[in-house]
Amino acid sequence: MSKKPLILVTNDDGIAAQGIRELVEAVKPLGRVIVVAPDRPQSSMGHAITLDQPIRVEPVDLFEGVEAAYQVSGTPVDCVKIAVNKLLDERPDVCVSGINHGLNSSINVIYSGTLSAAMEAALEDIPSAGFSLDCVESRCDFRASAQAARIITEKILKFGLPTEVFLNVNIPNLKPEEIKGFKVCRQARARWEETYEERIDPRGRKYYWLTGRFVNYDKGQDTDEWALANGYISIVPITLDFTAHHAISYLLNRWKWNNNDNT
Amino acid sequence: MSKKPLILVTNDDGIAAQGIRELVEAVKPLGRVIVVAPDRPQSSMGHAITLDQPIRVEPVDLFEGVEAAYQVSGTPVDCVKIAVNKLLDERPDVCVSGINHGLNSSINVIYSGTLSAAMEAALEDIPSAGFSLDCVESRCDFRASAQAARIITEKILKFGLPTEVFLNVNIPNLKPEEIKGFKVCRQARARWEETYEERIDPRGRKYYWLTGRFVNYDKGQDTDEWALANGYISIVPITLDFTAHHAISYLLNRWKWNNNDNT
Repeated sequence: MSKKPLILVTNDDGIAAQGIRELVEAVKPLGRVIVVAPDRPQSSMGHAITLDQPIRVEPVDLFEGVEAAYQVSGTPVDCVKIAVNKLLDERPDVCVSGINHGLNSSINVIYSGTLSAAMEAALEDIPSAGFSLDCVESRCDFRASAQAARIITEKILKFGLPTEVFLNVNIPNLKPEEIKGFKVCRQARARWEETYEERIDPRGRKYYWLTGRFVNYDKGQDTDEWALANGYISIVPITLDFTAHHAISYLLNRWKWNNNDNT
Repeated sequence: MSKKPLILVTNDDGIAAQGIRELVEAVKPLGRVIVVAPDRPQSSMGHAITLDQPIRVEPVDLFEGVEAAYQVSGTPVDCVKIAVNKLLDERPDVCVSGINHGLNSSINVIYSGTLSAAMEAALEDIPSAGFSLDCVESRCDFRASAQAARIITEKILKFGLPTEVFLNVNIPNLKPEEIKGFKVCRQARARWEETYEERIDPRGRKYYWLTGRFVNYDKGQDTDEWALANGYISIVPITLDFTAHHAISYLLNRWKWNNNDNT
């Protein structure tokens, strides 16, 4: 098998985003590229899938030098599912998602369509990574993040990943020469503090806009938030086993079970 | 403070589903109940949140003996966020989600709106659990699951939960007297094998329906799938830390980093 590796590229900002073009250009030297991405922005879709609607797939002609590219009328997770189970004749060797316009560090892994696509690939036994840049503009300086994406994708192809693990890679908004390097880290304990802005529509009815502030309450220096704040690219390996193993014995011992509860 | 505990109830099948009415009835004896649920079915929405659309909230009069009930034009996660950050004057003592029409065992925790609502509550430091019954009809026998929901909710209120942990509770579709008891377990290794059914619309264009088959490839007897298959109610504690801790040293040691990659 001297065939070059097959690289599946997707994202959640939609097929027209700058970030996915940058990612395609970054990984093209490493193999044959197929793009399957949402036909419109799908940020914050989490791991949503489309069950109640049919899905449309259209070939698009937006990328130079790729094997094929499709836009899909679904979520990022739909894109990975339909790519692997319908559109591709062979299994991808790696799936890369992004480059997201905006960070997906810490707990944002659960809200992010970018990371959910990578997670879905991992569930399909395809090594994968999601890449996110700390820039929410529609035009950003993707040089450092594109370089990081190429290095990480190359390493995945060469060394593989442990089973049931994929990578959440976040890149600070710096010039390549300002980046200090990579840090393999754990997810910081952080969360969003939300407020809802109340407004009145032209017909006199109330509505709300979600707004929020990301709060990192983790002082550890081994976290992704620390790495990003200190000029490093953060790499957090994410598990597909969501069991809180330490809590099993807690529940068995600390909760008083009646005889007829018999656990 | 002799005030009765405040119980937030939500779901992903929508405010009109039988399952949420059964859950409200089940937990009503334990405290004051407030219902905040999606105004329409939101299954398989995962952890999606609504950023690009305003959110509407309407009081509804569907539940007897509750403090208040609202329908929300958003996802299950939106419901928890807006309940905690806008609609409620005090923090709930517990959040319960469901009872879902259909199992959310094993990996389904990531696709399920029911569990995402419980996860969001846990992120807000509110002890929480999601309940799902192995019955996808719109009318089901909820007796065993309602009983389980009351027992678990009572235990959460009495004994609490470890920090950053919530419960994924699944109930087999059996009569109460046929249930063997509760099992605290780990998430089974399982996944969906998808196929896409291709069809042609009246205008001659192709479209696809997602269909799939759930495959459990985990032979362990300490898993939720084993418990359910053997007549037990499964309780899996779920973590909010998605770091694959074992993979950190793997990545540091097995991946060859160049000097200028300096991790």
